[in-house]
This record gives sequence, structure tokens and C-alpha cells, in this order.
Amino acid sequence: MRGAVLYAPGDVRVEERENPAITAPTDAIIRVSATCVCGSDLWDYRGVNEVTQPTPMGHEYVGVVTEIGDEVKNLAVGDFVVGSFFASDNTCEICEAGYQSRCAHAEFVGAGGAQAEYLRVPLADGTLVATPGTPDDDLIPSLLAASDVLGTGWFGAVAAQAGPGRTVVGDGAVGLLAVLAAKQLGAERIIAMSRHGSRQKLAREFGATDIVEERGDEGVARIKELTGGYGAHSVIEAVGTQESMMQAIRSTRPGGHVGYVGVAHGVELPGEELFFAEVHLHGGPAPVRRFLPELIRLIWDREIDPGKVFDLTLPLDQAAEGFKAMDERRAIKTLLKP
Amino acid sequence: MRGAVLYAPGDVRVEERENPAITAPTDAIIRVSATCVCGSDLWDYRGVNEVTQPTPMGHEYVGVVTEIGDEVKNLAVGDFVVGSFFASDNTCEICEAGYQSRCAHAEFVGAGGAQAEYLRVPLADGTLVATPGTPDDDLIPSLLAASDVLGTGWFGAVAAQAGPGRTVVGDGAVGLLAVLAAKQLGAERIIAMSRHGSRQKLAREFGATDIVEERGDEGVARIKELTGGYGAHSVIEAVGTQESMMQAIRSTRPGGHVGYVGVAHGVELPGEELFFAEVHLHGGPAPVRRFLPELIRLIWDREIDPGKVFDLTLPLDQAAEGFKAMDERRAIKTLLKP
Repeated sequence: MRGAVLYAPGDVRVEERENPAITAPTDAIIRVSATCVCGSDLWDYRGVNEVTQPTPMGHEYVGVVTEIGDEVKNLAVGDFVVGSFFASDNTCEICEAGYQSRCAHAEFVGAGGAQAEYLRVPLADGTLVATPGTPDDDLIPSLLAASDVLGTGWFGAVAAQAGPGRTVVGDGAVGLLAVLAAKQLGAERIIAMSRHGSRQKLAREFGATDIVEERGDEGVARIKELTGGYGAHSVIEAVGTQESMMQAIRSTRPGGHVGYVGVAHGVELPGEELFFAEVHLHGGPAPVRRFLPELIRLIWDREIDPGKVFDLTLPLDQAAEGFKAMDERRAIKTLLKP
Repeated sequence: MRGAVLYAPGDVRVEERENPAITAPTDAIIRVSATCVCGSDLWDYRGVNEVTQPTPMGHEYVGVVTEIGDEVKNLAVGDFVVGSFFASDNTCEICEAGYQSRCAHAEFVGAGGAQAEYLRVPLADGTLVATPGTPDDDLIPSLLAASDVLGTGWFGAVAAQAGPGRTVVGDGAVGLLAVLAAKQLGAERIIAMSRHGSRQKLAREFGATDIVEERGDEGVARIKELTGGYGAHSVIEAVGTQESMMQAIRSTRPGGHVGYVGVAHGVELPGEELFFAEVHLHGGPAPVRRFLPELIRLIWDREIDPGKVFDLTLPLDQAAEGFKAMDERRAIKTLLKP
């Protein structure tokens, strides 16, 4: 099969790879219908995370089940499925509490590289959710979004307790879908922090009521100005840098909630500032599986259209250009078709 | 009047100080019936916080109103009152959300030094809560506890969402009262981390079901062992050091809650570990005012007896010995009688 492999910073190649095979009776193999490039893939692509060996890329996927292990009970060959980047048994206490990304038996599905024609998904019964039928083609981008970028933005909004009240978000792809989530969760006022025309436009389509272009201390001051001097109730951090994390904490009122879903890189939170900030902090790798049934329903019923976040669609063989366009911020998010 | 003043690390003196006077129409003056030494006072006493000038000490108090400013409406001279260490208007949006310690107009009541015969309390209407009448003498230690150590432990337990499930706490005075709070909030299993016989005994009286003596990695391993390998649902951090904070985070299961009420000293939280820990973090200076009406009721009705935490009672003039006994861990907490 064909699959994308990162050889070194900036060097993504699509090449022949061995087809995945069932290795445990709880596995399933899927034929990938659509996959995409994640903001977190760029940490590797830019060399921030060291690349020590050729690494299959991608952890977002939708597709059709082609093979199941002997113990898989809830899925059948031919099912169209959406899954998360972490496999989960969905039965342990952690899963039952809704934290499937930290399942006692969690495995990173992306280890096999989802930017490929086929993918092995461990713990298939607990990881994959079948759609009500074969989706129309135009629903595929949105279903793919549910696999990570929407699921993660949604978790950010839930972790930040977005709802009636105000919400502030970043402007990455996840941030934009956190806007969509905040809107669905009933937030009346949603402030998007963005300096890019195309992203501002999409933020407004997804439900943003205000746009703040300033960053850092000026951004914090602007948020305070917009919220009676108090700061926002709910702030979603979707980047993962020291600057964005501190901006999120400082933009939140005492007693407010920060939901952080940007994978932290080099972040150190100063304890004393955090203590006196008196905010709620919650986040981590999104337990997408918790939200999948509801997200699939909203997409299936065409109540939300998160697929709009993909502003570049390429054949899998052009994965390198897909990474490059995101790295240069020419694209918000790239969908790849195997 | 007489009042305790810290001159240098280890050097507390009780000396003549000027009586406080009304300086704003929202002030009240109280005659202090009982005050005490806080674990956080020891940061100054031990020289961890720099002492640059003679500093009046104490921020915990109960007493009788002797004078009120022209705009004070809810209190009368003669009322017996309990207040928090932060004055609050109790009307701003932050107060209304229950975060009176971060009131838009918060003032540190301890600035005047509560370890004294009289104390000026700013924003008296929003800060002080009158008891239903003059309390019996034996209730005074418990009412004094409500002013900070109980209110703070209670906030820690609430921030950690203690309730049905498990709870883990430190063994400071605040930690012990967090045990009491967790019990009141319905936690079925309460693990106290303590290596001191007298504190273990009190922890059991307050509701602890298990005691863990180990600290650091061994303590974390023991907590995991006691909680099916997952970690506790709710952990209360009541110390404020790097070690205790990391121990709290690592003892908590993914999706669980850490409530931190120990004033952070030199704490730096590593972003990546925090991200993948996937816990909820909430804490800060306890908004004691939120809980005072309920705590006063529980004490008045003799449903709880948090005053037991005071195992040393001294006249105010012996404040120096009160500090020394706590510093040397001969006393859990010292009550001072002006």
C-alpha cells in the first residue's frame, strides 16, 4: 500500500509500505477513505520533536472495515467507521468516566500511520464508532474532522465549561472547531483570537461574535476590556506554547475555566501565578471517543459542518505539499485522499 | 493595644501597637476574641518569604464588632462575627460566582495583623458573617477555624470535587480539615497522608478511612495500590511545595480532580507531564466567604468540631512560643487569646 513517512524535518515521502495485518484478536483493519494532517504533526515536521527514524505519519481517519479479529463483536466488515487517535477498551474505570484517551490499555493508533491506504486499529470495539450507513461523499470531511480536530476542539470547549457565558479561543484549526463547539454548547458570546482573514471568516461562520487580533499582554488586555474587566469565563488553549498557555490563564477570570488541548511543548507553569489566578485548568489528549456518537449524529443530521476547516484537499501522494501548505500557513488544514 | 509583630525570621514579638481606626465608611473594627497561627505564617517565620520590615502578623479571627463605618448596613456593634483573610464586597461578578478571595475589590485583612486585640476589617458588610448569637466559649475554636483553616480545607475538598469516591489529603492542619470536609461532602473513602501519630489520630476522628505514611513516588505507588491502579478521584494539596504538588497530580487518576490550597512556593508545573496527566486542577486562596454561612451553621448545630485542630492554646502575649511550637511540629495549630 501507499503511505506517508517522515524521514527528517521537512521531508515527507509517500512510498510503498507493507499492508497492516491483524495482530491481536481485538484488532480491525480499515481501508482509509480520508485522512489529514494535524497541527501536532507539524511539531515533527518542523523538527521541534526529534525524528530519529523514518516515521509513518497521521492519526486521523475514517474508513471502511475490511477485516476484524476473532474477538471483535460490535463491528462488521463493510462498516463505515470513525475512530480516535488513541485506541481504548471503553470498559475500564477511566473510560467509563469519559477519559478514553487515557484508557488503562490505551494505544496510539497513529503508530501505524493513518496517512495511508490501510490502517490497523487496536481494541476496535472500544475505539471505532460505525456511522448509521455509508455516508454521502460531502459528509466525509466532517466525519474525518470528528476523528480529532473537532473532537479535540469539542473537548477543549467542554473542559473550559463553555456554555452560557463567554468563550475565548485560539485560531488554529482546533481553535476554530472549539468555536463551533462553544456555539453548540450554548455560549452566547464567543471571542476568536485570530489575525488571519480566512480564519476570522470561518470563525464567524462557526459562531464567533467577536474577533481579537492582539496577542500576549495586549490580547489579554483586550479580552478583559470585552468582559467588564473580569476576564472570560471559559478560555480554550489550542496551541501548546508557553505564550499561548499563559495568555489563556491570564485571559480567564478568577473561578473561570481554561481548557487546554494544544500538546504542550516546553511549557512550565509558574505555581505562584497559577495559585493566585484561581482558575480551573483541565485538558490533555482529547478523549474523542466520549464525544463521537454525538458528533456523528450532529454531522449526519447536517446540524454542523466542521469539514469546512479543510481548505485544501489533495491526493495522498501529494502529502508533502499538504504539510508544506500548513507549515507556511497557506492552508488551515489539509485533507488527504488515499 | 497588644499585637504580634514579626521582626525577622524566628523573631516574633508581642508589643504595644496603635489601635486600628475606621478609615473608610465600609470598615468595621472588631475586638478579637480568638486568633491563631497559620501554616502560611511559617513561610515568613522561617525566612522563606523575605521580611523587610516589622510586620504585624495574623489573618484569622473571630470577635465582636465595636465600631462600624457610616455605610455598614448588615452589622451592628455587639455582633459576634467570623470573617475571611480577604475582604470582599460580595457583590461583584467574581464574588457572585463564589470567588470572594479574588473579589474585584479584595483587600488582605491580615495587613492590619489579626494577632492583636483589635482589627480593622474593610468591606465589612461583604466580609463578615454574624453568628446567630453570642457563642458558647467551647464553640469559639471551631468558629475561628472557619475563618481560614476549615474554610481552606473545605475549598480544597470542593475544588477536588470530593464526594462519593476517594479522597487523598496532606497532613497539615488544612489537610486534616480537608478530611473533615470530604467526609461532610459524602466521600466514602478518605486517605490521609500522614507520618505523625497525633495527626493520624485526628485524621481518623475527622473521617479518614486509610492512612498512608509514604511520601513522594512511594506515596503515589501506595495510593495507586489502594485505588485499583488508577489513582484517586480527588486529591487535596495543602502544602504548596513542588514535591507535594507533583505528588498530588501523580496520585490522581486521569479525569480526576486536584484541589490545591497550599500557597505555592517555588512551584513550576511541567506542561507536558500535566498535559498527559489529564487531571483537573483548581485552587488558590480559598474563597472562605462562600462557605461561611454553611460552616457557621454546622458548627453552631454541633455537627462538626473543627476546633479540635487547635492542640495548643496560649495567651496572645506568648505568640512567640505559639509560632515556635508549630515550626518544630510540636503543635498542629496554635490558638491565641488576646
